[in-house]
This record gives sequence, C-alpha cells and structure tokens, in this order.
Amino acid sequence: MTQPIVLKNIRRLLVANRGEIAVRIIRAAREMGVQTVLAHSRADRHSLACQLADLAVEIGPAPASKSYLDINAVMHAARTHAVDAVHPGYGFLAENAEFARAVEAAGMIFVGPTAQTIAQMGDKARARATAQAAGVATVPGSKGALDHVAAAIDAAKDIGYPLMIKAVAGGGGRGIRVVDSASALPAAFAAAQREAQSAFGDGQLYLERFMPQARHLEVQILGDGQRVIHCYERECSLQRRRQKIMEEAPSPALNDRQRSSLCQAAVQLAQSVAYRGAGTLEFLFDQGEFYFIEMNTRIQVEHPISEMITGIDLLREMLLIADGQPLRWQQQDIQLRGAAIECRINAEDPRQDFRPSPGTILNLQLPGGPGVRFDSMLFQGYVIPPYYDSMLAKLIVWDESRERALSRMRRALGELHIGGIAHTQSLHQALLADADVCAGRYHTRFLEQWLTHWQDGEAAASPAASHEGGLA
Amino acid sequence: MTQPIVLKNIRRLLVANRGEIAVRIIRAAREMGVQTVLAHSRADRHSLACQLADLAVEIGPAPASKSYLDINAVMHAARTHAVDAVHPGYGFLAENAEFARAVEAAGMIFVGPTAQTIAQMGDKARARATAQAAGVATVPGSKGALDHVAAAIDAAKDIGYPLMIKAVAGGGGRGIRVVDSASALPAAFAAAQREAQSAFGDGQLYLERFMPQARHLEVQILGDGQRVIHCYERECSLQRRRQKIMEEAPSPALNDRQRSSLCQAAVQLAQSVAYRGAGTLEFLFDQGEFYFIEMNTRIQVEHPISEMITGIDLLREMLLIADGQPLRWQQQDIQLRGAAIECRINAEDPRQDFRPSPGTILNLQLPGGPGVRFDSMLFQGYVIPPYYDSMLAKLIVWDESRERALSRMRRALGELHIGGIAHTQSLHQALLADADVCAGRYHTRFLEQWLTHWQDGEAAASPAASHEGGLA
Repeated sequence: MTQPIVLKNIRRLLVANRGEIAVRIIRAAREMGVQTVLAHSRADRHSLACQLADLAVEIGPAPASKSYLDINAVMHAARTHAVDAVHPGYGFLAENAEFARAVEAAGMIFVGPTAQTIAQMGDKARARATAQAAGVATVPGSKGALDHVAAAIDAAKDIGYPLMIKAVAGGGGRGIRVVDSASALPAAFAAAQREAQSAFGDGQLYLERFMPQARHLEVQILGDGQRVIHCYERECSLQRRRQKIMEEAPSPALNDRQRSSLCQAAVQLAQSVAYRGAGTLEFLFDQGEFYFIEMNTRIQVEHPISEMITGIDLLREMLLIADGQPLRWQQQDIQLRGAAIECRINAEDPRQDFRPSPGTILNLQLPGGPGVRFDSMLFQGYVIPPYYDSMLAKLIVWDESRERALSRMRRALGELHIGGIAHTQSLHQALLADADVCAGRYHTRFLEQWLTHWQDGEAAASPAASHEGGLA
Repeated sequence: MTQPIVLKNIRRLLVANRGEIAVRIIRAAREMGVQTVLAHSRADRHSLACQLADLAVEIGPAPASKSYLDINAVMHAARTHAVDAVHPGYGFLAENAEFARAVEAAGMIFVGPTAQTIAQMGDKARARATAQAAGVATVPGSKGALDHVAAAIDAAKDIGYPLMIKAVAGGGGRGIRVVDSASALPAAFAAAQREAQSAFGDGQLYLERFMPQARHLEVQILGDGQRVIHCYERECSLQRRRQKIMEEAPSPALNDRQRSSLCQAAVQLAQSVAYRGAGTLEFLFDQGEFYFIEMNTRIQVEHPISEMITGIDLLREMLLIADGQPLRWQQQDIQLRGAAIECRINAEDPRQDFRPSPGTILNLQLPGGPGVRFDSMLFQGYVIPPYYDSMLAKLIVWDESRERALSRMRRALGELHIGGIAHTQSLHQALLADADVCAGRYHTRFLEQWLTHWQDGEAAASPAASHEGGLA
C-alpha cells in the first residue's frame, strides 16, 4: 500500500479565481483535506465555485479590475480569513510577480513559482535569453534592433527565408511583413521602416523566421525548486485569434525521438531556473525542429489532457509542492498512456463570428461513461455573467489511442446538451468530422483558414455526423 | 500508432435491456460505429437510452415478463430491424440459454458466451463440478443430499465447523441452521430435517462450511473461445440482502500473491470451458483461502471499476469478441493501476428500510473533475418508473491509491445532487466515514450489521463529513 499523502503546512487555501478553474482548485483542495476560501466578485456570487467552496467571500464588483485583479482586495480576504496559501489559477493575477510578492510578504504560500521566476520567465525577452543560455533553441531572429538594411541582409543569412520583418514598437500583428527571398528584402525593409516610423514613431525593426506551417506544442512540467520532471506534451495548434479551441495529448506530429528531445529541452530550461510548481513551456514545431517561444508559470486551461494521459493530478501536485514537499515522482514513473482530447465549450456563437452569448442555462445534459470528464462552471439555471471570458466548460476524453479518443469525443459531444445559449459544440463536431483534423494534419493557422470555408450547410450536418452509427 | 479497431460483422446491434446498462451499451456501440436499436417497454419510452439510441422500438408493456423477458417480443424486434447482433446487458435475458439459442438460431450474434456455456455455468451445481474438475476450490460441503445423521457426521469431518445445514429444496435463506461443533450436529440435523419436511415437503439436507467473516471477491475475465485473460478482482463484500451496494478494485484484503492465485484460478476455470465473452467468477475469500461459488456469464453492474484500474473498455472488448476477433491483449498488457470505487445510487430511502422511492428527478447536479465517472439513466425531469430495479446511477472514481480514491469519492458524493426523490447518497457518505470501511475491514455480513447500528444522528452528520475540509 502506498503512503498516505498529507499536507503539512496548507490547511486553508484562498482560491483567487473564478469559473471552472476555481472549481478545479476547490476539488483538489477538498480531496487533500484543505479548507477553501473563495474570493469572488459580486457578479459571481451564485457561481458553482461559490456553492462548492467552504467559504465564499465577496471582494468587489464585477469588473475584474475591482475584484479578481485587485491585489489589495484579494490580500484583504486572504488576511481576514487567515489562509495559509493562495492559489491564483490562470489568468487574472496568476502571472503577476507583484501579487506573488504580496502573498509571500504576508507570510503566506503562493501556489506557484517564486515572484522572481515569474518576473524572469514572464518577460518574453528575458525568457528567450534564459532559453538560449540553457541551450534550448528559440525562433531564429536578429539579435536586437536593426537600423540599416545592410544589417538586415546580414542577419537574414543566419535566419533563412521566409522571414518576418517586425517593428520593435509594433504589436497586434501590425507592421509585420513576410519576405520570401533575399532579393525582396531591401525593398520590404525600407517600406516596413517607413511604415513603422509613421505608425509607431519608431522605425526600428527586427527579423524573425516565418514558419507558416508551424505547430504550437507545449510541455507540462512540475518542479519542486530542485528537480524538474515533465508530463509530456500537448498539441495546441487549433487556435482562433491565438485562443486555443481544441487540444490533444500527445501531439500526433511527433515521433518518439522528437517527443523525447522536446520534453528534455523543456526540463532543461525549467531546471536552469530551478523552477517550482506547475509550468508550461511553449514551443513552435516546424519541419522537425522545435523552438521555445514562451513559458507560462501557472496551471493552464488544457492541463486535464496531461492528467488523462499520465494519471497525475496536477493540481494535487501543485499543492504538495507548495506545501514544501519534494516531487513524489521520478521521470520514469510518468508513463504516457493512450490519448486525450479537450474541447473548450465557449459561450460564443460560431455562426455569428463568435459573438459572446451570455444568458441562462436552461437545460443541461452531460455525457458520461468511460474515459469522459467534464470540468465546468455550469449548472441548470446558471446565469452567465457578461463580464468575463467566454469559456464555460471543458469536455475531455481519454482512450487507448488517438483514433479511439476521436471517436469517443464525437460520442460524448453528441450526448452533451447545453440549452439556453449559443456555444461552440457544433464547431467541435464539425472539426471532428474534418479529414485533416482526424489525420492530425493541422498547424497554428489551420483553424482560421478552415473557419473561412466552414459553410452553414456543413455545420447543419454535424450533429448527425456525431452519431457515427446513425440510422439513415 | 496503434492499428485502427474495426468491427467486421456487427453493424447494427439490438440492445435488449434498459436503464444505465442500455446507455452503456449504446455508448460502446456508437464509439465503434455500430448502429443501435433499443428494444424497450412502453414504460421506458422516455428513457435516456431511448434518447440516445439510433432507433428505439417499443416491444411491450411495463411488466418485464411482457417486454424485457419476452423472448418472442425481443426476437421480433431483432428480426424486424435486421440487426447483426444482440447485447443482453445484465439481468432479464442475459443468462437465459434459451434466449442465446434463439439469437443464434436467427443467424444473429449473441454478445456473450454460447448457449451451452450459459447452461453449464448458470447451473450452480454444474458450475461447481466444473470448477472442481478444473482444480479450483469450491466451498467445502457434502457431496449430494444426506438422508441420515450418520452420513452428516461423516461428511462434517471433512467440512469442518462452523457449518451450515441447508435444505436441498430450500431457498431464500429458509431451512438453514448454523452448527458450531460436532456435539451439536445430531440435534440440529434432526430439527432441520423435520423443518424441511414440513416447509418444503422434502426432508433432504446438505452441509456446507459456514464462513461468517468471508469476503465476496470476483474476478473479471475476457475470453475469445480460445484464450482467457483476467482484469483483476473486484471486492464486493458490502452487500445488503445479497445486493451489492459499494464495490472497489482491487480488494484491500489481498496481497499480491493471493491476488495472483485468485486471478489465475479464475482464468483456469474459464479456460476449462473455452469461455467466450466477458464473464465474472465469484469467490468467497476466508482466512487466506478462496472458494469458487458461481459464475456470471455476462457483464456486471460493477464492471466500471475494473475498467478504471486497467484502462480496458470491457463493453468494447465484448463487441470485438462477439465480432469474432481474437483477444487483443496478452495478460502482461493488463496492468493494475491505482484504485477504483463504485457507489450505487438507488432510488430507495435508506432511512425507511430502503423503501423504493420512484418519482421525478427535479434537480440534478453531477460531480466532475479528474477520476470521476458517472454512469446513469438520469436526466432532469426523468420520471422513474415503478416497475424495475431501483438502481439509478453509478458514481465511480479512480485515483492513484485506495486512500486517495476514498477521499475523491467523498468529494464527488458531496458534489452530487439528485433532487425530487429519496436515494442512497447519504448511506454512501456514512459508509465512507466509517473507520472499518476506510481501513478495508469488512466482510459479506458487515453491512447488514452496520445498518442496524446506523443512527439517524450519525447520518445527519454525514454530509458535513463529506467536506473533509469544511469550515467549522
């Protein structure tokens, strides 16, 4: 019989988040015998998390700036209720080094890395430099800003084509030009420089390799400040406006050798900062090579698929690590088994350009049976507040193989009914009927291209397609 | 990448059952691309299974004898809708050899063993003889009926004390006497003989060893008619009136050596009849020894806990075997991982001597998160018909260890809300707060003894106890 798992330092936990991740944290805490105090906004006072927490404390009005993002309000709740630890979830204050410092300064445990690690890995440029120092490849690009086309021509030799010219002061996709060959560089550089100068008042440019077919892969890691292990990768290339829609683990794009290299690189990088807690290292994967892009120093939305393929409860491990306990696992204990898929059910109408669709949940019927998990904030009669992000639920399946998991997800999606609002179930059903998605042939630009072709007729057929054996 | 799993012969399946097992069969079939035709009673026409099946066919009125037990009605539906195969589920016709023969005679596939195996293993005396022939121990008892006390005294020397005197013609616990020593045998025998004669018109008696502290263990096996593998054991000692209430896998009573012997004995016995399909061999386990008692030649209610600890989808394997495919697994592929528990949620009031509680489901809130599975026939607004057995749902959890699974089950039970009817949730919460249950110290008579001590006060406290970290 295995040894009992007991927390020594954490007896009362502040849950500094909302929605399904607040529910997820409460569940993990309850199973470990930890009391939960939920710090919530007035708009969330009837939420599922409020029902499930041992204590729900209203900390401010609906706008996140007045509640979930208000460090003083959150810390006031933490102090008033004498919690030992604070779990930030994802989003809001989860990667705010100042918040982590405030928790530490109050003598409480921040369930996550040190404020210093958050600051170091949260800054993209610093994270990139840290990766390079650890010997982990980053997206090839020019070192610093380029003032003259001659420097650009020189830098481009190392970067290769196609490449992107980006404005140092740019953002949101503005000021980016794709260049296919050396001969096109001088004219494009000059034009980009003029454009950046007029748009941002700063003509400085830099170059980065352009990978139009790249995949977005990420590696889940756990560290205790001494040692780091990985829980394999997640394939997160199905994105719309950089928001992941559907994720799977493992990635269908990797062979065993590539998987091993990728995961090893992630461990190496996290090890180099003596990482503590759960974290994710994001990579682009293109033509057999991977390039570190950024780190998320927190739990992620899509963490359940890693839990499903490894049997590890990541939220539990976060609590154990935060409690000061060494990692319980050796790398060889973490076995990749089968395949998992997650569909994010968002309160958005995919037929109306993903217009948010708040409202009241009138009818709720959940899928069940083997290998099906439903993590959500939903209940019959729940009124979705209009103030927060649109994700309502995550439908997750596991099965022995990717082929089986796809089939199981179709079955589970076919059983799910969420009435009263528009949501993204039909989008997932259509995606799971797509030959490229089923074959694992997709990249980060796939979904947006696919959406432009998604016809109403195709979508109307998808509920039937979800019944693979539907009688004619 | 693993090979795709494809059925070659089964394209349309008759589901000859109701309730949660009908739903379970439909789910497995759908994931394999098999169309489902549900044969249901009029009383079940609004059931979840009817909603989920590709086609629902009413075969008769509510009484099972006029629908689910009516072979002609079921076969009529099978023929009319030209199914390739028939899945009997559990109960009703699942172990009826005549039904299996009728399916075979109609040129369809019976998802289960041959009619001959059902007849052989369904007869307790023949199954017992088969076990003995296969070298598997059975409960020590007299060979055949005993007419005279002298023969009983002789037989008792081999059986040992305490023993039970049972009437050959008896049943339902009647005509049973427990004898503690040789000196008490003659008088007890004479009294039992008189009682049996007057009660059943037949004074014949037999002896069987009495094991008051025995556990009920059962081994899940899969056979393809050639080869048999096991999926480890289930611990099913928590019973009331021989109905299992809560099950777990693996059994906390076995060490590795005992587990291996038990499972090997089950395989040996099933192998000796060239078993085909999913089956369960039931054993008593007492003082380190196990004794075969009977075999169930079908899927069982508690099969999900075996699925959770092995990752094998038993219903899928049943379909593959019925399709004529050889077992996909070697024994060494089947790894026991973690621990699983199932709580049966019955529409019975445990405060009112388990009085059936039909009615309408008014409010339904299901637990979620990692390691939680909910197999049920429930939906909001479902009207429970009064005609059938009381089981509504099975709440199943998996976790890395028994200790963690217990904690997770408490958490999940705490999240579950089924409004509108009385049910057994509070009983499970009280059982999971019991020190003996938590330590795995229980046997087949434990629950009935425990129930006599279960005070109202204790039960009222149990919902709070389910919140392990509840704020005072």
